[in-house]
Amino acid sequence: MSDFEEQKITPAVLESFGETPDPRLHALVESLTRHLHAFVRETQPTQEEWAQGIEFLTAVGQKCDNVRQEFILLSDVLGVSMLVDAVNRDIGSAETDTTVLGPFFVENSPIFAQGADISSDIKGDPLYADVLVRSVDGYPLKGAKVEVWQSDAEGFYDVQRPGIAEGFSLRGTFSSDEDGRVRFWSILPTAYPIPHDGPVGALLKATGRHPWRPAHLHFKLSAAGYQTIVTHLFVKGDPYLKSDAVFGVKDALVCNFPRHAAGNAPDGRKMETPWHTLGYEFALAPDRNM
Amino acid sequence: MSDFEEQKITPAVLESFGETPDPRLHALVESLTRHLHAFVRETQPTQEEWAQGIEFLTAVGQKCDNVRQEFILLSDVLGVSMLVDAVNRDIGSAETDTTVLGPFFVENSPIFAQGADISSDIKGDPLYADVLVRSVDGYPLKGAKVEVWQSDAEGFYDVQRPGIAEGFSLRGTFSSDEDGRVRFWSILPTAYPIPHDGPVGALLKATGRHPWRPAHLHFKLSAAGYQTIVTHLFVKGDPYLKSDAVFGVKDALVCNFPRHAAGNAPDGRKMETPWHTLGYEFALAPDRNM
Ligand SMILES: [Fe+2]
Ligand SMILES: [Fe+2]
Repeated sequence: MSDFEEQKITPAVLESFGETPDPRLHALVESLTRHLHAFVRETQPTQEEWAQGIEFLTAVGQKCDNVRQEFILLSDVLGVSMLVDAVNRDIGSAETDTTVLGPFFVENSPIFAQGADISSDIKGDPLYADVLVRSVDGYPLKGAKVEVWQSDAEGFYDVQRPGIAEGFSLRGTFSSDEDGRVRFWSILPTAYPIPHDGPVGALLKATGRHPWRPAHLHFKLSAAGYQTIVTHLFVKGDPYLKSDAVFGVKDALVCNFPRHAAGNAPDGRKMETPWHTLGYEFALAPDRNM
Repeated sequence: MSDFEEQKITPAVLESFGETPDPRLHALVESLTRHLHAFVRETQPTQEEWAQGIEFLTAVGQKCDNVRQEFILLSDVLGVSMLVDAVNRDIGSAETDTTVLGPFFVENSPIFAQGADISSDIKGDPLYADVLVRSVDGYPLKGAKVEVWQSDAEGFYDVQRPGIAEGFSLRGTFSSDEDGRVRFWSILPTAYPIPHDGPVGALLKATGRHPWRPAHLHFKLSAAGYQTIVTHLFVKGDPYLKSDAVFGVKDALVCNFPRHAAGNAPDGRKMETPWHTLGYEFALAPDRNM
């Protein structure tokens, strides 16, 4: 055990984890050790490259604060977040496709009544959303918690704007009505770059990648007895649908956001300018533990 | 490219890195993607486990400051640091075995004259070191830079002590004389736990591992025209030689530190209490680029 040549190190590390009390943690650290060591053996990093790796990871951690999670960004741009999403899906499930949470979700966003406007008068093309929350076998789900969040017309989330203490915008929590529907007013989201002034942005730049995400609305849907869904609805025609920086696009989540001429909206609101609608049916699967 | 089921994500991420201008960086990010994804596919982490992983890495980064490098500790306890060391060694080289740098190295430590005492009167068993720096083919190297650093008798490095601004101790830079020798006084180092009040310590605890390292002196040896060596000399008989928390022990680096009765030391110093000596021959290999 004491002469650690290249081939002896991995067994020694695996042995050191041999007394891990929790079997799941044991499996995780063993697998991590094997795959991490395989990466080092394959790439044979120099000491300088190792030091650059340490510096990079340290910078990623130190970029994190209350409103910035650089390690989630790193997980996203390496496709890890979407892979974790994929391995957690039941094969052949009829539930709505899921995608990354992203770094801009906020717990306990403001609660709005049916039909409310979450735009806080932020300028943009008006959008009227009317979505259905149902079970995979077709029953409307009443009282489902529907959390929505999106960027503004310039591609920023409220938490990215200075003066965050002034409150939230383009973000809210709704409850589905007895027909399983949630209706709200907002604005059309736009494509935006993920935050790229930090180490993850530097990695994208060094590897010739752009930081853009196609325009989308985020949804988190929770209902008692059903599996929670975290997903987006993407705007059809967006130029970044084929090259999302975080690999989050799935075909079934790309929606038409049809444009309408000025006139009366379905809820009677009188529209002075052109506006858009969004319709979608979210299908939730029963909780696996029920 | 837009329907990212489990098997499609890895090729999509690899393709996204396809335009990386620097071929070495390209190879590194490709290999990282493949091994990281293999780890995720094998362990199938839940969203909660993924979030715990993000939190852990963030905590590791945020624990780092001027005198604490938690990501090096993580690399050390996962055996990555020693593996990087191993893949960088020429097979069959006659140079002195190397081991981890560790988190307590400081650039530009105080310069001492031949024979000086680096202990700053810190209590401990006196140690007189007399080491030789030579080339692998036996020639003494004059003017080699010999940097030494070690813990005190309670297992702490100077940078871990409050009041760091007061200066360094048990750390210094020497230059080998025309016979290639460096002589200095210090104290016998003791076993110590790596800093374990942070997330890496929590990982060790959760996996049933202890944080101890066997007693050692650190050496960094640099000479023009030769490959720099970073290594330790370990104290024979230490109980942690077989279970070093960072996998740094190599048999050829374990030394006798013979104990002597009170009396005259080789440099004429009169010893009132028992004291120890250390002798070692460091062999440096020619620079690969020469
Ligand atoms: Fe987003
Ligand atoms: Fe040490």
